[in-house]
Amino acid sequence: MAQTSTNPVIKSNLADFKVGVDNVIFSVDTQANRLLVLLVKRKDNPFLGSWSLPGTLVRIGESLEDAAYRILAERIRVNNLYLEQLYTFGTLGRDPRESHNSFGVRYLSVSYFALVRLEEAELITHDISTTAWHPVKKVPQLAFDHNQILEYGYQRLRNKLEYSPIAFEVLPEVFTLNDIYQLYSTILGENFADYSNFRARLLKMGILADTGAKVSRGAGRPASLYRFDAEAFAPLKDKPLVFI
Amino acid sequence: MAQTSTNPVIKSNLADFKVGVDNVIFSVDTQANRLLVLLVKRKDNPFLGSWSLPGTLVRIGESLEDAAYRILAERIRVNNLYLEQLYTFGTLGRDPRESHNSFGVRYLSVSYFALVRLEEAELITHDISTTAWHPVKKVPQLAFDHNQILEYGYQRLRNKLEYSPIAFEVLPEVFTLNDIYQLYSTILGENFADYSNFRARLLKMGILADTGAKVSRGAGRPASLYRFDAEAFAPLKDKPLVFI
Repeated sequence: MAQTSTNPVIKSNLADFKVGVDNVIFSVDTQANRLLVLLVKRKDNPFLGSWSLPGTLVRIGESLEDAAYRILAERIRVNNLYLEQLYTFGTLGRDPRESHNSFGVRYLSVSYFALVRLEEAELITHDISTTAWHPVKKVPQLAFDHNQILEYGYQRLRNKLEYSPIAFEVLPEVFTLNDIYQLYSTILGENFADYSNFRARLLKMGILADTGAKVSRGAGRPASLYRFDAEAFAPLKDKPLVFI
Repeated sequence: MAQTSTNPVIKSNLADFKVGVDNVIFSVDTQANRLLVLLVKRKDNPFLGSWSLPGTLVRIGESLEDAAYRILAERIRVNNLYLEQLYTFGTLGRDPRESHNSFGVRYLSVSYFALVRLEEAELITHDISTTAWHPVKKVPQLAFDHNQILEYGYQRLRNKLEYSPIAFEVLPEVFTLNDIYQLYSTILGENFADYSNFRARLLKMGILADTGAKVSRGAGRPASLYRFDAEAFAPLKDKPLVFI
């Protein structure tokens, strides 16, 4: 960072900021093949009554990450949740409080991203009029620039699905090859890849262990159940890989 | 972002920030096979006289990007430079001004990243005691947490090299396959990949056009000169790819 000037005129040119954190928490309803995002209803101005990403302003003595985990803990109980920093949004006027504040304070948003397993993510409140999973395809107009932040998070999620084994964090412990394909289709869109190519590529990577068990669903032949083989994946972890 | 509380006690709990931008600008000396980073010497406290990443504090009415481009324009002339946001650093006490300031102001750093062609990047000053390219492998102790920011930028650069055609932004217009391999080795380290595999993979992608010309260097056979075929790459742009 930056020259500190001893010239008070230049010093007073510096903008003052409050810093918010906003969390883009995705989950997947694997039954209904829907990608979900956690939204909360605002209880204060500005944007009173609007849906928004769960967020907060950073307090004195609090790190960015602390603030991100704090607001999450107020909304959701989940094991081993790992938040990843997404992007910092600082466009002028992104918060309506900026223009009305005579001190000229700006509001920055540092956004964080996570993908959680729906069954393991328990909402603190069961009042779905204030905290709820929304299908990403049907998200309403959100407060502030949160639709833009969500779009950015969605792009990050797609990239991670293409380049990392993040899908196995939301799949059940054992799954069929078709389950994985459905999950990818839910997030990346139908026809993101040919099924037999996708299946062949995944098997060739050697990161799926056949459990020996099979499952019958509908009229087709029983399908093999696999689990993610973390041990086989370990030596590949730092290698560039493509999963689709 | 965040509930606005009407409770003044809670309001006063919010931290106040100044926001800095710091640029991690890489280049490659393709003659000497060295990865370089642009550093500037601080002319003010804190860390007076230390090398640092080029940075500034964001001014009133200035966006984060504007600030990042402003500080760059004061240091370097380069065509079509595209800065990409890297990461936001907000650890408590990352700036020594924090603890001495009775107002408890925190200093956040939003870092930006770029890779530029050395021949096209003209430093504004030729006083290398204040602004200079440093080999990444021999960077001194930097001001603030800038060594950590640099390390983060270096990791981003390696990822981009693996997953995107960013290498062609710093290679000359025409180059040999060995030139590309050298560039990758310079950034990713020797033996990042077997040369003949790397060569075969690149040619198979179909994004290199053989110019028909050859060049003789040293004792070996003349080597074919290629150029990056942006038209052939266009349909691949949004597909996941691995370059090594």
